[in-house]
Amino acid sequence: MIRYKLTIEYDGTTYHGWQRQEGLPTIQEEIEKAIFRMTGQSAVLYCSGRTDAGVHALGQVAHVDLPEGFADFKVRDGINYYLKPQPIAILKAEVVEKDFHARFSTTERSYVYRIVNRYSPLTIEKNHAWQIPKALDVVAMHRAAQLLVGTHDFTTFRDTDCQANSPIKTLDQLDVTETGGDHIEIYARSRSFLHHQVRNMVGSLKLIGDGRWKIDDLDRALKAKDRKAGGPTAPPDGLYLFKISYGE
Amino acid sequence: MIRYKLTIEYDGTTYHGWQRQEGLPTIQEEIEKAIFRMTGQSAVLYCSGRTDAGVHALGQVAHVDLPEGFADFKVRDGINYYLKPQPIAILKAEVVEKDFHARFSTTERSYVYRIVNRYSPLTIEKNHAWQIPKALDVVAMHRAAQLLVGTHDFTTFRDTDCQANSPIKTLDQLDVTETGGDHIEIYARSRSFLHHQVRNMVGSLKLIGDGRWKIDDLDRALKAKDRKAGGPTAPPDGLYLFKISYGE
Repeated sequence: MIRYKLTIEYDGTTYHGWQRQEGLPTIQEEIEKAIFRMTGQSAVLYCSGRTDAGVHALGQVAHVDLPEGFADFKVRDGINYYLKPQPIAILKAEVVEKDFHARFSTTERSYVYRIVNRYSPLTIEKNHAWQIPKALDVVAMHRAAQLLVGTHDFTTFRDTDCQANSPIKTLDQLDVTETGGDHIEIYARSRSFLHHQVRNMVGSLKLIGDGRWKIDDLDRALKAKDRKAGGPTAPPDGLYLFKISYGE
Repeated sequence: MIRYKLTIEYDGTTYHGWQRQEGLPTIQEEIEKAIFRMTGQSAVLYCSGRTDAGVHALGQVAHVDLPEGFADFKVRDGINYYLKPQPIAILKAEVVEKDFHARFSTTERSYVYRIVNRYSPLTIEKNHAWQIPKALDVVAMHRAAQLLVGTHDFTTFRDTDCQANSPIKTLDQLDVTETGGDHIEIYARSRSFLHHQVRNMVGSLKLIGDGRWKIDDLDRALKAKDRKAGGPTAPPDGLYLFKISYGE
């Protein structure tokens, strides 16, 4: 068997997230089915970080062991062929060492969260951004976001179902920028994130943006170490797993 | 009656273009139906430039006469309410003079054409860009595009069904730029375009980009004044009516 690292893009709108779930369409199952059709053998995918229902990926990474005899490009194009017409695509397939593990070898993860700040409903970006009617103060959001950068107990921004051992994480970057027109992007980078951490941070930053919270309120929320002290969870629509790094 | 100028965004994927056609879903009909539901009266929309099936708009403009008693924001939000859940949205509704005509008052139109230059199929941008597997030389495409800027007989890039009086148009701008990752955008600006002109120019520039045509071939094609001398018509998926100007 040869181990492959797959870089994967998908539109999460119609899937119940990455992870296999009995009777529900998931990204993992669709790719595993495509691999089975290609190789005639069952294979299990291990990803860097599971995404929830409705969340998208521009650069998810997973590894899989395949029988010998497939060149790299055949792995990519073969899986893509059997995935059609689903909105899931293998961007790259690379042979890696047997000790490579998509999840445990990850050194850094980054997410992008897209907001469209306007009154009218979304059309082309429907299901692909969070539409917020009230004008947001992007500068205030970015300033407040810097409070969350660094090593903290992120219990306030952690889903109550989160299974991580510790709520203490180091957030390396959290930038809020206007990207033209009425578009805002929030870029978050860390070695690892707690469940719903990005969406919960975005939900609180939105309260800063629309003036309901001051920077002190965010500070108090962080220090409360209590999910109930945080803002609401931002919808999955705007979240994109952007990039996974392996210390290359 | 009060005349309104509507700025409209839509995802053209599932529509048979702008113009009303018996028995087929079109943007014009859907908006006219929404206006009827809002006002209880029939209204006819006049747009700046009809878009074909599958073509999108970020800033289409149309005018319509409505009974008095609707404030601007009510016109926008009311039509949007009745359009739901369709991917069509009124971005702005402004009162204009009675002599304003969305088509005849236009002083400038611009389009953006999006290409994703990669081997893997599209997922998130499915139906919203032209996926081209072969690597394109963007610098060569931009240089060649400058040959088309200016006043020319554009018969080579004109659909054989085009009803314009003259094939002579002045193209003010045609820029080909890399916009990050494997994305390429072609921006075209003119007072007016012939039917399929942008898609036909893009189809020829693609031949430059993938090396099948040299700049001389494009020159010969333009001078031939014959649609058969031009490259293929680029698919509608990547085309966006970007902005309509009224000499403001």
